[in-house]
Formats: sequence, structure tokens, C-alpha cells
Amino acid sequence: MKTIKVGMLGFGNVGTGTYQTLEMNRELIEKHVGASVEISKILVNDVTKPRQVVTPDGVLTDNVADIIDNPEIDIVAEVLGGIEPASEYMLKALNNGKHVVTANKAAVAANYDKLFKAAADNDVSLRPEACVAGGIPILNAITTVLGANKFDEILGILNGTTNYILTQMTDNGLDYADVLKDAQAKGFAEADPTADVEGIDAANKLSIMMALAFGHYVHPDDIPTEGISKITKADIDKATADGCKIKLIASAKNEDGKLSYSVKPVALPTDHPLASVSNEFNAVFVKGNAVGELMFYGKGAGPLPTGSAVMGDILMAAKEIAESK
Amino acid sequence: MKTIKVGMLGFGNVGTGTYQTLEMNRELIEKHVGASVEISKILVNDVTKPRQVVTPDGVLTDNVADIIDNPEIDIVAEVLGGIEPASEYMLKALNNGKHVVTANKAAVAANYDKLFKAAADNDVSLRPEACVAGGIPILNAITTVLGANKFDEILGILNGTTNYILTQMTDNGLDYADVLKDAQAKGFAEADPTADVEGIDAANKLSIMMALAFGHYVHPDDIPTEGISKITKADIDKATADGCKIKLIASAKNEDGKLSYSVKPVALPTDHPLASVSNEFNAVFVKGNAVGELMFYGKGAGPLPTGSAVMGDILMAAKEIAESK
Repeated sequence: MKTIKVGMLGFGNVGTGTYQTLEMNRELIEKHVGASVEISKILVNDVTKPRQVVTPDGVLTDNVADIIDNPEIDIVAEVLGGIEPASEYMLKALNNGKHVVTANKAAVAANYDKLFKAAADNDVSLRPEACVAGGIPILNAITTVLGANKFDEILGILNGTTNYILTQMTDNGLDYADVLKDAQAKGFAEADPTADVEGIDAANKLSIMMALAFGHYVHPDDIPTEGISKITKADIDKATADGCKIKLIASAKNEDGKLSYSVKPVALPTDHPLASVSNEFNAVFVKGNAVGELMFYGKGAGPLPTGSAVMGDILMAAKEIAESK
Repeated sequence: MKTIKVGMLGFGNVGTGTYQTLEMNRELIEKHVGASVEISKILVNDVTKPRQVVTPDGVLTDNVADIIDNPEIDIVAEVLGGIEPASEYMLKALNNGKHVVTANKAAVAANYDKLFKAAADNDVSLRPEACVAGGIPILNAITTVLGANKFDEILGILNGTTNYILTQMTDNGLDYADVLKDAQAKGFAEADPTADVEGIDAANKLSIMMALAFGHYVHPDDIPTEGISKITKADIDKATADGCKIKLIASAKNEDGKLSYSVKPVALPTDHPLASVSNEFNAVFVKGNAVGELMFYGKGAGPLPTGSAVMGDILMAAKEIAESK
């Protein structure tokens, strides 16, 4: 059996979840691919740091060239986060003829055209499933078997941190600042929560979904974006009194070829299907002119759900390589 | 631009929806495929019968050999329904080196091994997305980007007719027989409703989902199956009094490699996510050991939603052909 070699850039939460998914399910993954799959190199800052997951000797490296310039590596999985140097690394890997899988919405949203052009120019794939809604396989759906639809609308709760905060404020009558502090203590929110609470993360995800669904790329800076940091207990109480729940909604509509889009808090009637999506869960609605309304629901974050998406994309890239070899 | 030629077996509701989906969205479908796509032959019983959709001269034929033995046809879309002669036609098309797309759950569930073996032997694809849950892209998800998961459970409302009947009985306090008659008049139930109301259709769909999710094929006759024809107004009233809704649930569990499965009416608590799936809508839950719980929701039947799935699979097969030509 051939071996497909994967180099992973980063070994934080998502990287660890990806590695664990392969370890847990190696037999069925390799059966699916028709080749053996090995994460043979992982880029980290400090190779000596103790880690939750133990890797064989020689797997960890602090030199990115060991992965992106390594002729033995077939697939690069980029789970670093941040626009740079991740974008530069992905471009280099694509230009070196490697398939790239990424969970990095900020980098893909910022450099969408450049990255996909490099993939096309080098006849390799760039697979971003894990960028949007964690484990929910929405990007693959809209780009494969839903591809015969003209999409009229996409609408989603795409950020687990803000949905957790809004759910806790609503269900327990708490203030924004208190819930945020609690979420940070529990690891549901980052030390600097700006990208989540100000809607930037959701705008990145919306940018990628719009580009894939409508074939029209909008830079996330050009998406009107309002976060939840100004939502008060009074706003929540008013919504509750009105029979509504406040959710951070990313939405895009395509009317006669004219796109409109935004990320903002919306008071949804409690009987709206998205109103019952609570805590760290994500959901995406799409409306196609043939299929009608579809909803996808699942965990939008977390090491294993996101690892499922990264490993799913690695599996698809590995299968493509195995079949062409 | 190359032309990929599709021959369609059948021109009823699903065939018409497939044809219309291509007509509506031809430009984006062909851009996606990278080739032009043409439904160049359609098998019908009577070529002279007036139809809702007008096709160019020479497209309709009453001779199946014009499609399955026609060297110009690249893809056969089988939307006849019924186990035979559909299975025989599909096998012949596969053995003639044609990719096959099908919406026919009865045929695929009855002859799963034979059909997929013929596809593998001839190095072509057999694509059954439209067989399960209409427009909901569940089969593609579990066989592609969710493929890195061991699935623990799948659970679904897979039959729109029975879900419509149960919803109407529950919401309007009606008797089974009256709702069935009304559903038949509205075209939501067939003249002979046996396959739907006795759970046979749901068992066919469960058989296909289990084979793809667990890699283990069970003939639908071997799935314990109970329909809804014995559900009375009294059963519904009792469920309502207990805070439940009766739904026809197809379910399969994989515990330590031991599969258990059934199709039967289940009283679900009203706060269960599947309890709010009403009328002709379908929903599927899957639980994977990495991704956790996912739900997919959408229209499980109807010409355009099912046509979206058939056309989506044609698109994927056509893309494969265009890229290999």
C-alpha cells in the first residue's frame, strides 16, 4: 500500500483534534483512501514543549521548510490561524505542487483569490471545509452535490463563542461582561475575544461561503459587521418580552444577481429554526432555486469536530492523490 | 467546449424536475463541470403523450437500447422507480462503461452489492444521492468529508408522505383514513400507498444509508419494519397528552461493531429536534466519533428538490468525465 504523507502547520487545538481523529479512525480512513495516511511532520514553535498527544521521534519540527519544501510531503494541513505567515506558507506549498487543507478562515477570507488561483495554476486542490462551521460539512455540500442550484440566500449562526455568550445571557439573565469572563475561564472564549465578539470571525466565514455559493468574493472588511459587545441585559430582556431571541446572524442574499450581506445581532422569533440553536452549536440555512430550504446543524468548534473537517479534507485530497498515482 | 451526454430513464416527477433544474441553471452547471451537459435521450413509454416539459425532436425514445447501449451516452440517470427493470438497466449501463446516477431507492437497496460491484469492476461511479431524503445531501456528506468518522448512530425522518399524514393527524385531530384520502387527492400520497405507509420506503433508504455509513449492507427485508397504518387518533391523542409527537423513525446504531436497526413509529418528546420536523420535510441525524451530532433538514421529496440531487450527481459524474477526458 502506498503512503500519502501529510505535513501539518500548527499543533494547537485543531491540530491536536486532527491528529487524534486520524489515530482513532486510521483503519477506516485508509480503507476509504486506498492508501496509508501519515502525518509525518508537524510545525511547532517549541519541539521540546510537553504536549497532550505524543508523536513519534522526528515528527515535530520548528522549521517550516521541512514541510512546505519537502518533496516527500503530498498534503499540507494548515491549522496555524492568523493571516500571516499562514497565507505565505499556503501559497508556497501550493506553488510547490502540494494539496492544501486549511481551517484558517482569516487567511482564506483575506487572500481568497490569490490562494485559489495558486491552487488552480498548480493543478492541486485547496480545501477549506474546516474554515466554516467547524464539523458541519457545508462547504463541500454547496460546492458538490448542491452545485446544480442557484443559491438565493445563505444565513447562519457561524460563531460558537458569541452564540454561547448570547445563550447564557438569555437563559440565565446575566450581563455580557460576566458571561464573557466565565467563557474565557472555561476556554470557550479567547483571552483577546475581539475577533469573535465583534463579528470579525463570522464575517470571515461569510466571505468564504459567499465566494463558494455565489461565485462572488467580497473581502471581509467590506462586509457590514456589527458584533455583540454592545448587547445589554436590557436588550435581551426586551427581546424576551417580544418573544424573540437575539442571535449573531451572518447573512447573504442574491436577488437578481445583486448581493446584499451583513453580520449583525438579530432578534429572531422563538419559533424561528435558528432561535433554538444554543450555546456552542452552529447552524447554516441555504436556499437554492431547485432544492428549496436546507438546514445544517452541528458543533461549530472544538478540537474533534473541527479535526473531523480537517481530516475529512485530508482524506479527500489523499484519495485524489492515491487515484492519480 | 466538450459535451457530456446524459441519457435519462424515465420522465415522471423526478425526471421532469431533473430536466427543469438543468434548464434553469445550465450556465452555472456547465461552468462548474467545465463542459456542456446535454440530456440527449429520455426513455418514456409513449413518445407521443403530451408533457409538461417540451423536449427537442429526437430526445424522447421508447427504446432503452438508445440509451444504455448508445456509445455517445456518458451518464445514465435512472429515475424509473421499481426494482425491475431498473436494476437490469443500471447493471447493463454500468457494464457498458457508463456512470449511473439514480433516485431509485428500491432498486439500490435490493441490489446494493451487485450494483456497486458492477460500478467498481467497470471503473465508473454509481451515485445514489437522490435515493435518500430527496434534496438533502446526506449521502455525499457521509461518504466524503465526514468519511474520517466512525459513525455511532444515524436516525431520521425519511418519508415525506407518512410525516405529512402524522403531522395532519396531530395538528388537526384527524383520522388516518381521512388524512390519507386527502393526501392522495393532493398528490402527497400515491394511489397505492403501501410502500410509504408500511415503512418499506423508509427501510429502503435506511438500508442504503447504513451500507454507506457503516460499510455493512442489510437487505431492507431484514430490517424490522413497522409502518403507520395502524396509528389511530387515540394513539395521537395519548402522545399529545404525554407531551410527545409520533414520528416514523428510521434508526441504526453501531455499538462496538454490533449493528441494531429498525423502522417504526416513535413518540418523541416535543422538545426533541426531530419532533418539529413537519409535513413533507425530512431530517437526518448522524453522530460520528469525531464530529459529534449533526443534523440535516430539508425537503425529502418533490420534483425540484429531488431533481436537485439527481442533477447534482450528474454534475459530479460529468466533472469526473470532463477532467479525465
